[in-house]
Amino acid sequence: MSVAETGEFGLIRRITARFSGGPSCLLGPGDDAAVVAAPDGRVVVTTDVLVDGRHFRRDWSRPADVGHRAAAANLADVAAMGAVPTALVVALCAPPDLDVGWAEQLADGLAEEAALVGASVVGGDVSASPTLTLAVTALGDLCGEQPVLRGGARPGDRVALAGRLGYAAAGYTVLSRGFRSPKLLVDAYRRPVVPYQAGPEAARLGATAMIDISDGLVADLGHIAAASTVGIDLVRDAFEVPDPMRDAASALGVDPYDWILAGGDDHALAATFPDGVALPPQWRAIGTVVEGSGVTVDGRPYAGRPGWDHFR
Amino acid sequence: MSVAETGEFGLIRRITARFSGGPSCLLGPGDDAAVVAAPDGRVVVTTDVLVDGRHFRRDWSRPADVGHRAAAANLADVAAMGAVPTALVVALCAPPDLDVGWAEQLADGLAEEAALVGASVVGGDVSASPTLTLAVTALGDLCGEQPVLRGGARPGDRVALAGRLGYAAAGYTVLSRGFRSPKLLVDAYRRPVVPYQAGPEAARLGATAMIDISDGLVADLGHIAAASTVGIDLVRDAFEVPDPMRDAASALGVDPYDWILAGGDDHALAATFPDGVALPPQWRAIGTVVEGSGVTVDGRPYAGRPGWDHFR
Repeated sequence: MSVAETGEFGLIRRITARFSGGPSCLLGPGDDAAVVAAPDGRVVVTTDVLVDGRHFRRDWSRPADVGHRAAAANLADVAAMGAVPTALVVALCAPPDLDVGWAEQLADGLAEEAALVGASVVGGDVSASPTLTLAVTALGDLCGEQPVLRGGARPGDRVALAGRLGYAAAGYTVLSRGFRSPKLLVDAYRRPVVPYQAGPEAARLGATAMIDISDGLVADLGHIAAASTVGIDLVRDAFEVPDPMRDAASALGVDPYDWILAGGDDHALAATFPDGVALPPQWRAIGTVVEGSGVTVDGRPYAGRPGWDHFR
Repeated sequence: MSVAETGEFGLIRRITARFSGGPSCLLGPGDDAAVVAAPDGRVVVTTDVLVDGRHFRRDWSRPADVGHRAAAANLADVAAMGAVPTALVVALCAPPDLDVGWAEQLADGLAEEAALVGASVVGGDVSASPTLTLAVTALGDLCGEQPVLRGGARPGDRVALAGRLGYAAAGYTVLSRGFRSPKLLVDAYRRPVVPYQAGPEAARLGATAMIDISDGLVADLGHIAAASTVGIDLVRDAFEVPDPMRDAASALGVDPYDWILAGGDDHALAATFPDGVALPPQWRAIGTVVEGSGVTVDGRPYAGRPGWDHFR
């Protein structure tokens, strides 16, 4: 059945039936607005939009995968502030011929990813549109910590990483060449595995700066370097190339370090910590904050394409 | 200059340059997420999406008008909970050939409408898309009041209205017939005049239910009736037809009460109050909550099309 056949209110009923309120949801879908707990007295808010054919392809990802990715992109931004995600709201623009089952499974993916961090989908909007589009907004609670910004890194700080790099980019390359395996990489593109808890953990440890890696490590660390007016030098040997990635890179004629250093969409977290902070297991050192500007690898400028511009 | 020429980050720089933080903005655009004050310890959140050619037409509205309308639709939902809006986040999907000036003026409209209530645009996202689309999320603070839901109306309550009805629908009809005047009506379609302060005021007065009129009075009061398991009877004589609306209706062969009772997009607020509450000047009585179900006018079912379905 198409969403045109269910109609706006039928579609909303079917979608919201997939959502159950998490602990921070004080009032869920069905009224003019939702109400979410904000015990800190400050609320973290971020929004990310995904456009069909640009941020996802319906022949590459199942609808639940798209839901997972859309939620993850937003929840990771909340975690990168050092906050704990509490709620999502979702605007869905759908072509009238979209199968309502697609929208329902999308909702399942959103709800499942949010539930990983104890958050839930509390509201949204739907509209017809020629272009399938998903705009997700995430809220989070700082739990009494100061938000960890991009501008606080200081020369001498250590740069550390939580989560995976290059997996989603490798999966994207695999899919774009018409392959469907290795499954590890393709699945990483479809559903990122985000170290959400590492964000608030870094805040408690006194991280001086933090960012979510969505455009590529070099590009995103470049934002920390610029905001902090410092340089960042990465150690190439700090990055292991896992065997399936090495094999795929070799088969496809790609340098796997391009995936690792410039690939986005894994939503790893990168942070800078004062020297001497003992890094917990999720975090591993990958470089150093230095005087200067920009991001270097083993002291040299990174030669590859650093990241992604959505209009180019 | 097109947004493709400025690129993603150039576009973001140009847009965010138009935004200044309001009193609730603790951290504005430029980091992974924004931080907004939530002194109540609960945050109200709502999202609304506007699609080019469906919710607005670029030949009917200037970009600043679209910004005003998009902000108003969301801020009115916050007010309809009895809350004071604090912040907006905005996702803009733009065709690569969109003039960057259009996006800048859109940003001005969003900022100006938000400033009417002391709120500000604190963050957002941009993407290329074949379909110009705007997804806005609004946050609000309850200031210690309980949220006013749709489900609390009781038989014997008075139904009251704050704001205008039928103006935007009349303006829409005028524009869709190829006219550009009367200006009063056309401008009302382009930029709704929303009685934001009436929302928190109603909460303080003990309103039992409230809703923002975006789909049409009969349709939206139908949501209160259904959620409260009551009926609502409106008094037709409570609605004055202003002279310019009467003239336009006559010239276009329309019953002006169809605009008033079924026209959306003015974002008036309708609320139910316990009998005996003295209504302040912004609120005027328009009917009564009764036993039963559905919405009647002078005791009879409303014969017109009650509202709008975005997929039909």
